[in-house]
Amino acid sequence: MKALGPIPAGYSAIDGELAIGGRLASALADEAGDTPLFVYSRDLIAQRIADLRAVMPERLNIHYAMKANPYGPLLEFIADLVDGLDIASIGEFEMAREAGYLPREISFAGPGKRDEELQAAIRAGVTLNLESEGEAERALDTAKMLGVTPRLAIRVNPTFELRGSGMKMGGGAKPFGLDADRVPALARKLVDAGVNWRGFHIYSGSQALDAEAIIESQGHVLDLAAQLGAEAGVEVPHLNMGGGFGIPYFDKDTPLDIAAVGAALKDRFDNLPDILSETEFAIELGRYLVGEAGVYLTRIVDRKVSHGTTYLVTDGGLHHQLAASGNFGTVVRRNYPVAIATRFDAPPEEEVNVVGCLCTPLDRLADQAHLPRAEVGDLVAVFCAGAYGASASPSAFLGQGPACEMLV
Amino acid sequence: MKALGPIPAGYSAIDGELAIGGRLASALADEAGDTPLFVYSRDLIAQRIADLRAVMPERLNIHYAMKANPYGPLLEFIADLVDGLDIASIGEFEMAREAGYLPREISFAGPGKRDEELQAAIRAGVTLNLESEGEAERALDTAKMLGVTPRLAIRVNPTFELRGSGMKMGGGAKPFGLDADRVPALARKLVDAGVNWRGFHIYSGSQALDAEAIIESQGHVLDLAAQLGAEAGVEVPHLNMGGGFGIPYFDKDTPLDIAAVGAALKDRFDNLPDILSETEFAIELGRYLVGEAGVYLTRIVDRKVSHGTTYLVTDGGLHHQLAASGNFGTVVRRNYPVAIATRFDAPPEEEVNVVGCLCTPLDRLADQAHLPRAEVGDLVAVFCAGAYGASASPSAFLGQGPACEMLV
Repeated sequence: MKALGPIPAGYSAIDGELAIGGRLASALADEAGDTPLFVYSRDLIAQRIADLRAVMPERLNIHYAMKANPYGPLLEFIADLVDGLDIASIGEFEMAREAGYLPREISFAGPGKRDEELQAAIRAGVTLNLESEGEAERALDTAKMLGVTPRLAIRVNPTFELRGSGMKMGGGAKPFGLDADRVPALARKLVDAGVNWRGFHIYSGSQALDAEAIIESQGHVLDLAAQLGAEAGVEVPHLNMGGGFGIPYFDKDTPLDIAAVGAALKDRFDNLPDILSETEFAIELGRYLVGEAGVYLTRIVDRKVSHGTTYLVTDGGLHHQLAASGNFGTVVRRNYPVAIATRFDAPPEEEVNVVGCLCTPLDRLADQAHLPRAEVGDLVAVFCAGAYGASASPSAFLGQGPACEMLV
Repeated sequence: MKALGPIPAGYSAIDGELAIGGRLASALADEAGDTPLFVYSRDLIAQRIADLRAVMPERLNIHYAMKANPYGPLLEFIADLVDGLDIASIGEFEMAREAGYLPREISFAGPGKRDEELQAAIRAGVTLNLESEGEAERALDTAKMLGVTPRLAIRVNPTFELRGSGMKMGGGAKPFGLDADRVPALARKLVDAGVNWRGFHIYSGSQALDAEAIIESQGHVLDLAAQLGAEAGVEVPHLNMGGGFGIPYFDKDTPLDIAAVGAALKDRFDNLPDILSETEFAIELGRYLVGEAGVYLTRIVDRKVSHGTTYLVTDGGLHHQLAASGNFGTVVRRNYPVAIATRFDAPPEEEVNVVGCLCTPLDRLADQAHLPRAEVGDLVAVFCAGAYGASASPSAFLGQGPACEMLV
């Protein structure tokens, strides 16, 4: 038997079934008209952001990193709850505009921005987080050509990393941002060029569950921003402190202690060096805001036994849930939180492998999982599906196509 | 420095540039109007199939497993070169019909076939490779409801595996097919029920480069099919012997010796047991037919140095090339064959990391690669991109969207 990840708070059984936003899983599948299906909960997103605001310094802006989940209705919903939006391509910019975001609320980071992306962003007034001297040159040229004052910040490749993070974005050679020691010269140059100078973007890692590691990293970010501003002799109007707040996916993962992070940050904000006294601070969070608010529902289409192992074969799979299948950024596959949605309060009574419908052994949703007995027609729920699910999976694989998505 | 995989045969430089189907990479990118771009070569596909036919027994049918590459024009082109098509979903069936395939040329395998998929396949006259007793029941019920005689085969979960294969599809508990010991009873039942009995589908693994392993596996497949037919007391009108023919992706990989495989198979076909004397044999190949005929072209948008490491940042990435990035079915990432397409005959002179444009450290196309010096605007070629590329990657990730595709 292999343990399942912890089911996030906020989900309960109604009439024996998993309820999401007060509605039964089976009713949601009926309403969608088909399975598989991603369901995102407004209440859980709003609650998550409210909980965060309650413990973070008021001065800290919260940005949504839409790469986590670009579903249109979700993007519209979260617009009223956050202070800004972080995008990673012009495709995301177009989705953001459709969802009603204003360009000045948006900042754009990404190591491979094409000329047409720079043009569109500068023309609209989006803040660019510059990733290299070369990109800075292209941005300045583009702005000149357009006759526009560009909103420019520098993304810094910090010398430190976020300890224990799922993905390290600092602490060595990286394709992201400028090495810290080259930042002052470029900052000076941009300010001298008369751009709308927006300060720094310092992102050191993602998916960390250890508050101490995040506190340490945020401390380093503040120190580095102050140091870079001083060395360059420029103000720091804005500081994007990155994200890194993780969610528990796997057995023994425990939720991040955001109260501890918030308290430490308040303390830092109360003792800022002069150069940061007027700075506007932001963190950018994707997964942390929406990941646990989403559930992937997939229907069991076959139940079979092979050499003593029971398989629940579903109509979903890695084409919608690449990360849950263990094929995206993980070396050792572990089980996400998974349940039988239509028997949510039944006791576990058998060990099964939950697999997808794809004709490949990579298509696994839960290995050796201890679950209630389930039959063909039952719905399986994969939790933590609100981030890096639908949009981060190869939906066209084997001719399957995308899943339904709903915001409830 | 890390070695690159071997560039497949059939690619050469014209005027210093990579040529595909006799045309320059830069001209192909111009014609497509945008990068990134998948280019598939008609000539290389046709040559591959001709080479295969030259060494395989004439009696052996060659099927195309379209999961490898469902691009419409390629699907149409290959139709005249192969004897049948293997699909894994009704989505693939629809693409196959658009490309002009007849239902009787098509067989459908996949562990999670939904009721509507069974209906569509049975109604059209597609051969179903049944994956379980439960699926057989559903297929029989569906056929009865439709008043149609279904074309049914049984997919067997063999007791052996394909040694050295990239993905093992046999030799233990599997979600695919019926365990061999349960096959005779179901075969008998299907024949007694008056279905159009199509025999067996036995698939033991994929992506093998060792001819001896394939010869051994094909021998086991023939033995098992004969044994199952005899035990069930049924004829074996058709035997899908699976695939498993691999292509070299990585340094030190060597091409499969198909002459050896063909000779061994001829020998087996000359000495078949009576029960297989009238059998129609097929192998189903996807990657082997089209994988090396495809190239992914992506343009360098930035060239930067971080802590002494040079990065070539491209406008492509894992959203089109998930497997090449090392995030799909591989534990240790190794470099695919990669070249600077626009400096194809230039000598290597520096060590670089080629990365994609996505804002994630997972987005790598070549690590520590020894390549000619390249600048912004140059095109990078990733080879072995004809299979499990465009359709097996998360193209919507970070708002990027799909790549262009061309058949030349």
